[in-house]
Amino acid sequence: MEERDQSSDGSLLVALAQIDTCVGDLDGNAAKVMDYCRKAASRKADMVIFPEMTLTGYPIEDLAFRATFRRAAWARADQLARDLKDADLGDPYVVVGTVGTDREHDRPRNRMVVLHDGLVWAGYDKHFLPNYGVFDEYRIFTPGEKSVILDIKGRRIGLAICEDIWQEGGPISDMAAKGIDLLVTINGSPFEEGKGHVRRELAAKRARQVKAPVIYVNQVGGQDDLVFDGGSFVVDADGAILEHSPQFVEHLGYWALSASGESGASAQPVRSLLADDLPGDEEVYRACVLGLKDYMVKNHFTGVCLGLSGGIDSALVAAIAADACGGSNIWGISMPSRYSSEGSRDDAADLAQRLGLHYEVKAIGSEFDAFQDELHLEGVAEENIQARIRGVIVMAYSNSKDLLALATGNKSELACGYSTIYGDAVGGYAPIKDLLKTRVWELARWRNQEAKLHGQVEPIPVNSIVKPPSAELREGQKDSDSLPDYALLDQVLEAYIEKAHGREDLLADGFDPETVNTVMRLVDRAEWKRRQYPLGPKVTSLAFGRDRRLPITNAFRE
Amino acid sequence: MEERDQSSDGSLLVALAQIDTCVGDLDGNAAKVMDYCRKAASRKADMVIFPEMTLTGYPIEDLAFRATFRRAAWARADQLARDLKDADLGDPYVVVGTVGTDREHDRPRNRMVVLHDGLVWAGYDKHFLPNYGVFDEYRIFTPGEKSVILDIKGRRIGLAICEDIWQEGGPISDMAAKGIDLLVTINGSPFEEGKGHVRRELAAKRARQVKAPVIYVNQVGGQDDLVFDGGSFVVDADGAILEHSPQFVEHLGYWALSASGESGASAQPVRSLLADDLPGDEEVYRACVLGLKDYMVKNHFTGVCLGLSGGIDSALVAAIAADACGGSNIWGISMPSRYSSEGSRDDAADLAQRLGLHYEVKAIGSEFDAFQDELHLEGVAEENIQARIRGVIVMAYSNSKDLLALATGNKSELACGYSTIYGDAVGGYAPIKDLLKTRVWELARWRNQEAKLHGQVEPIPVNSIVKPPSAELREGQKDSDSLPDYALLDQVLEAYIEKAHGREDLLADGFDPETVNTVMRLVDRAEWKRRQYPLGPKVTSLAFGRDRRLPITNAFRE
Repeated sequence: MEERDQSSDGSLLVALAQIDTCVGDLDGNAAKVMDYCRKAASRKADMVIFPEMTLTGYPIEDLAFRATFRRAAWARADQLARDLKDADLGDPYVVVGTVGTDREHDRPRNRMVVLHDGLVWAGYDKHFLPNYGVFDEYRIFTPGEKSVILDIKGRRIGLAICEDIWQEGGPISDMAAKGIDLLVTINGSPFEEGKGHVRRELAAKRARQVKAPVIYVNQVGGQDDLVFDGGSFVVDADGAILEHSPQFVEHLGYWALSASGESGASAQPVRSLLADDLPGDEEVYRACVLGLKDYMVKNHFTGVCLGLSGGIDSALVAAIAADACGGSNIWGISMPSRYSSEGSRDDAADLAQRLGLHYEVKAIGSEFDAFQDELHLEGVAEENIQARIRGVIVMAYSNSKDLLALATGNKSELACGYSTIYGDAVGGYAPIKDLLKTRVWELARWRNQEAKLHGQVEPIPVNSIVKPPSAELREGQKDSDSLPDYALLDQVLEAYIEKAHGREDLLADGFDPETVNTVMRLVDRAEWKRRQYPLGPKVTSLAFGRDRRLPITNAFRE
Repeated sequence: MEERDQSSDGSLLVALAQIDTCVGDLDGNAAKVMDYCRKAASRKADMVIFPEMTLTGYPIEDLAFRATFRRAAWARADQLARDLKDADLGDPYVVVGTVGTDREHDRPRNRMVVLHDGLVWAGYDKHFLPNYGVFDEYRIFTPGEKSVILDIKGRRIGLAICEDIWQEGGPISDMAAKGIDLLVTINGSPFEEGKGHVRRELAAKRARQVKAPVIYVNQVGGQDDLVFDGGSFVVDADGAILEHSPQFVEHLGYWALSASGESGASAQPVRSLLADDLPGDEEVYRACVLGLKDYMVKNHFTGVCLGLSGGIDSALVAAIAADACGGSNIWGISMPSRYSSEGSRDDAADLAQRLGLHYEVKAIGSEFDAFQDELHLEGVAEENIQARIRGVIVMAYSNSKDLLALATGNKSELACGYSTIYGDAVGGYAPIKDLLKTRVWELARWRNQEAKLHGQVEPIPVNSIVKPPSAELREGQKDSDSLPDYALLDQVLEAYIEKAHGREDLLADGFDPETVNTVMRLVDRAEWKRRQYPLGPKVTSLAFGRDRRLPITNAFRE
């Protein structure tokens, strides 16, 4: 991380307000805008720029169709403009996003407005509506038809919303033709590993296209299955990075556009920040923590509960939860059966002690016997009963103590259906559902190393990391009895799921036919279970859920 | 139902092949096309028209992105064209839908092709891509850019795919300008109550626009949460209906375009059919039956299991299941607790006897005691334990006998969260999830009346219909303790959910503030449970699921 001085006299001082909003919380989001404007006013900012759909939160999905919501959002923007004026903050130009209405078709718009002098001033509607991956904006919004260039203190300032800068044409080429001094973009760009540099390269390209600096303000925070990592920035007209806000935290950054239109050439010092990109393991881990933390806060949970098996998945989830809400707000439940090894119980107890969480042991023998006296199950059905008894117990903690139940499944399991629906799959949130098993191990090692570096207790027992994975639902069971080795499995999964490689492609990738056949069959058959799995944070380029919409009824077999 | 004679000599004889395809089953779908072409050839049909995306099934969702799937579909179309020629069927023009590839962008297309003379001939790509409600086609496909008019036996035949005729512009206005003798549309138009007449009025409008008859072939069958009801038809240039295939069954209809371009004026007799629209109760009931039946067949289930409480919901689901797969393939499990009334057990047994299903009684007392000895739960947590023990038992039947577990919740319950997740909500399919409670009663009465009319045993015990609904999870519990009266509740739900009415609107609708507040709060808080609920058939204009995509994390409260 590097800090350096700029100066701002005679120049336009811009504040980048990277905030964490909540979908639907019009009052809370407006209050946060006011709060950040106050801070920015203390630095005499001329403009304060907030993320996409600031007032409504993002994404609002079909809530956009409720006319009373759009009216309430619009009334809130009006009120906020008046409140900002009354607060006597030197009347900065405050750029916020909200939902608008296309009056001709009575359809929602993704809108950017400028609050100034007590009024809601200048509206720009998002032109390119992303409708791929996790995005459904073409479903919801009517696209904007025209570009908007503001004149603020004699500078020509172009406006764009998120996807608008991912396309060369439309408003960007229009502004390039007309000439601007600065391009301001507000964004709700969800996290995936390594995306930061993609955004900055893209903005650099657009800066060269419009021949002006580009300000990119991104939201931060978790919203259901999305995590927004922030990482707002400014690039110069030549694409050089001038300011870079940190990831995963709210932040108010500053940058000055000089009187001459060149940045960094003004008189008053402005301390700008150049945050480093986080390393891959850290950014993914922190995305999982923030996703869980915000799901809890925004849905009014103060604690969580989960089953602790002694294995690596529940250990990593517990560590993430401890970082999200503190060990004292976690109930970890060990639920041994006759097949649980002594080692597993010791590992679970060790983890609980390291994290300082509430640790309770509920053996499931008597429930198992009660079911079996009636049902006399064998094989997989008998295995599933154990997992489902545990599910009932976890949900009993959730119901009786108002705790968020956490599902501990990883992406490899979810892909292959290697879990018991209504058993270990129960929960309101699944913090590691987008992590392949090999990644789970990597993040566990990283988290321990991080603790060691800071002189703290390593949260995860080494034994949970190094022992061979097992569901322990029958005597001597190992994951490797049913699944290919995870190192191989995860490579096939990545190609099949994230790259949509079919059988021919997978063979061309060099995987052997037997593994390919096994993995494709397992993945295809487990779609119905994935559909009922809890939400969890997307951290890869293609997560299960709305990012990958495959039919359950699907007879295609390659 | 009415039949009348047309004649076809010198005219163009068209067969409307309303078939039930399966997503991904390229071989099975092609075999069905061949089969129907054979039948049509025996009548010397000149053209055989199949539904939208015949070869791939519909909708294929993100399966469209797998390049190996698109190549396999394309190879299958080639093979089918050759097979049709080799079969020596008089070489009709066979119109089928499939997935194509936009080579420039390597993106899928929703394509219509004509198989003729051993070749895949003439491609038309869907122009308007629906991306609302349950549809995500803009996500998946590149739109077509040009209209296609074929010359077949001297007649100018225009092509369109489904949504293309819902819009006045695009290919339709182009064809109207150029002049055509016949418009052929292939469709995958999902059922919702009363939609048949909407389609026919629309087609009549387009017929008048293009000044030619319109042939509308719709697919039939269930695909995950959608049911396609068929009801294919032909309207004349003046909009009059000339042929109407029945709903919910595969059907091969015929119609002749005379040499003069006027229909019904040719020499050879063609027996045309004018099926009546089904009454509302019957079409909704049959949609539920077909949805379940096809889910079973296409996912290789031969039987189902469900909990029988003696209440109306499980009774209606059992009746639907019996109509889908026969009573002998149903396992109905009565799982009484200390709170279950004698009457409920009698009603469950009576239902089982009427439907001839496997009836088993598994009292849950010992499991309940085993959990309570450990957990000592009270209130809602205690109630939920009972529902979850039942969920474990239902899933044990599913696992040990390879049965599809059915969830029995209705739309009112699902809306208000009046169910236990992982309890009564377990299952692979939920046949009545889009029926409000008042509709459940109506359909139960209708089904009994229908049986009576045909001299059969009424499937549903009258007592299950008339008694006050109760979850029987505590002493003397009634649904009315927690929820407004269903007659009122269902009206509020319909306005809030299907019409997206907000609080102001609901008050203007005449509902009292207390009820409005209660219902909105219940619905908003239950979103996370709905997300994990099984699939079930959409029968209304707005079903829960992909039809209504609301965030779980949503602080908007009116």
